[in-house]
Amino acid sequence: MPDVISFSRGAPSADIVDVEGLKLAAIEAFDTDPAGLTGYGTSIGYVPLRRWIAEKHGVPEDHVLVTNGSMQADAFLFDELISSGDAVVVERPTYDRTLLGLTARGAHVRLIGLEPDGIDVSELRRELEAGLRPRLAHVIPTFQNPGGSTLSLAKRRELLALAEEFDFVVFEDDPYYDVRFTGETLPRMLDLQDGGAAATDGRIVYACSFSKTVCPGVRVGYLVGPPALIKRIATRATNTYIAPSQVAQGIVHRFVSGERFAPALETVKAALADRATRLGAALKEHLPQARFVQPEGGYFLWVELPEGEGHDSARIAAAAAERGVQIVKGTDFLVEGGENAFRLAYSAVHADRVDEGVRRLAEAVAAARG
Amino acid sequence: MPDVISFSRGAPSADIVDVEGLKLAAIEAFDTDPAGLTGYGTSIGYVPLRRWIAEKHGVPEDHVLVTNGSMQADAFLFDELISSGDAVVVERPTYDRTLLGLTARGAHVRLIGLEPDGIDVSELRRELEAGLRPRLAHVIPTFQNPGGSTLSLAKRRELLALAEEFDFVVFEDDPYYDVRFTGETLPRMLDLQDGGAAATDGRIVYACSFSKTVCPGVRVGYLVGPPALIKRIATRATNTYIAPSQVAQGIVHRFVSGERFAPALETVKAALADRATRLGAALKEHLPQARFVQPEGGYFLWVELPEGEGHDSARIAAAAAERGVQIVKGTDFLVEGGENAFRLAYSAVHADRVDEGVRRLAEAVAAARG
Repeated sequence: MPDVISFSRGAPSADIVDVEGLKLAAIEAFDTDPAGLTGYGTSIGYVPLRRWIAEKHGVPEDHVLVTNGSMQADAFLFDELISSGDAVVVERPTYDRTLLGLTARGAHVRLIGLEPDGIDVSELRRELEAGLRPRLAHVIPTFQNPGGSTLSLAKRRELLALAEEFDFVVFEDDPYYDVRFTGETLPRMLDLQDGGAAATDGRIVYACSFSKTVCPGVRVGYLVGPPALIKRIATRATNTYIAPSQVAQGIVHRFVSGERFAPALETVKAALADRATRLGAALKEHLPQARFVQPEGGYFLWVELPEGEGHDSARIAAAAAERGVQIVKGTDFLVEGGENAFRLAYSAVHADRVDEGVRRLAEAVAAARG
Repeated sequence: MPDVISFSRGAPSADIVDVEGLKLAAIEAFDTDPAGLTGYGTSIGYVPLRRWIAEKHGVPEDHVLVTNGSMQADAFLFDELISSGDAVVVERPTYDRTLLGLTARGAHVRLIGLEPDGIDVSELRRELEAGLRPRLAHVIPTFQNPGGSTLSLAKRRELLALAEEFDFVVFEDDPYYDVRFTGETLPRMLDLQDGGAAATDGRIVYACSFSKTVCPGVRVGYLVGPPALIKRIATRATNTYIAPSQVAQGIVHRFVSGERFAPALETVKAALADRATRLGAALKEHLPQARFVQPEGGYFLWVELPEGEGHDSARIAAAAAERGVQIVKGTDFLVEGGENAFRLAYSAVHADRVDEGVRRLAEAVAAARG
């Protein structure tokens, strides 16, 4: 078996993480706030980090809750808002763990098509007008996982208008927002909602993470939402784990408050841009029949092969694995369909291995058609 | 209002935590395993720490799962084993968050009396013989929270025999085991079960934490149990938060593997022993009517006032708060009763404030009788 090239995991390679900066941040954090780092803290999160997040988003602190990674934030929100039988809108395709989390809670998941400019709001409107009454619409608006697409400004406004008209919560799951390496930054829906982000009756709940900007190993994510909801989730978090790690949050706080954060993020973005560019070029060369959107940011590229040619993403993934290449099959991100698709995470593949990975993958696609 | 003396929270004061040692451990951890600390890791926990725990308990690594604090471990276990309507045995009184967690899951909580040598196994046997069929018995065998008592060796064996005979799981919730400052160390039930701790059919699930031996702010706890159960909980943990903080676990691992851990734990134990001794003496002086067991370890002392004198722990707690003393009222640890009781955590009260705290508390007890 050749060396393994993994396009499977949405994680940065270790070489683009500012480990030295994190170590210095740890030293500073223990030196400056020993009691804060070593004590239990509370479920709202490490207070200075919560304040930093509130300032970043221009909201009062009571709109923010820091969690043990943003998937934990999703879990708390779903536990709080979703009852068995509730309709929940998600994108088609969407993050596999979101699908799992929703179906595990008995949600009636309604998948709405994803276009190159984000969720198909016309399709959503038709469904709503036909009687769909979702409790929540979960969208990953920026560099969607797995689709890679970004919701346009016009559609952001339309989605908010639909949420108002049909009375549902928009869960803006946005871990990749700060990992844009080209193109124009769009405003968050959190910032577009009526009354602004500080509105206490906001119907946006926003989730983000430091996994993509600092590193995954800290496991620090957060929610921004209406204070009453945040307070209920804080109670739930207290009863689940008392508090997220104050040590990890203290280190994140010192790191993002310090001078090394901005250049560290530039390093990540430059490396990812390079990897994404090479991935697009390699796909065009080795797998010219593949359709994909060239990413402007984030970690993922979603590949669709022509339909009606008998592709089977499980067989492709197996054939790729035999050739030392790991991918995630498209069917994982859908309730049905996806046999002709797969997700490529370029975040962890060193630039000089991208072409070789795609070359092997193209072999696997051919072999899997058998 | 005078300065606040808090007997309410089971947490060490910051001055007895080896902050310098933790800082050095953080430096070492980032230096020696940057990829391990900064990557996602998996839900089983940071691999070197998991191995350290497995070695500590003499079990294979697949018996161990590290969690975001041991309360999170409780939550995962309850989610895995308890369905609405299941009977669960707990001690009377017991940890308030355990009661909350069980009742929130619809468990039928059966409280069994706590004696100075632990849960009343004779009462439990009578209940079992009368038809009680618990799914789980939750016990805090060492320096029980809030009761302070420790389960005797004979009763440990009896409880295990009952678990075998009546087919229930014993959840040995044991965060205080290593915080003994006097008296004889008893074997864990985990180590007493048939076939030894490595038995794959073990009916003990053991939980412990580094909150009491390192510091709470790391939020690192763990479960030891049968591999099949651990594997199911690992899947649940993956779907909840992917993994606990690798950064926090990496720091804990370096700290507990290093030379500073043993003396740091001695510092904690010496300070707690001093505080517990002063607390017992102060109660005898200022509140001679109080009944309590002088702790041999742990964080807590449970005070009972004579019954039939109209004591009301909520009124006492309020009167104490007016005097700048925080306690937790006994009723929080029981489904019914506890009006004449309260819990004193001495872990966070500096030795020179203990007597003053109890003096004010005695005033509060008198005032609350009105």
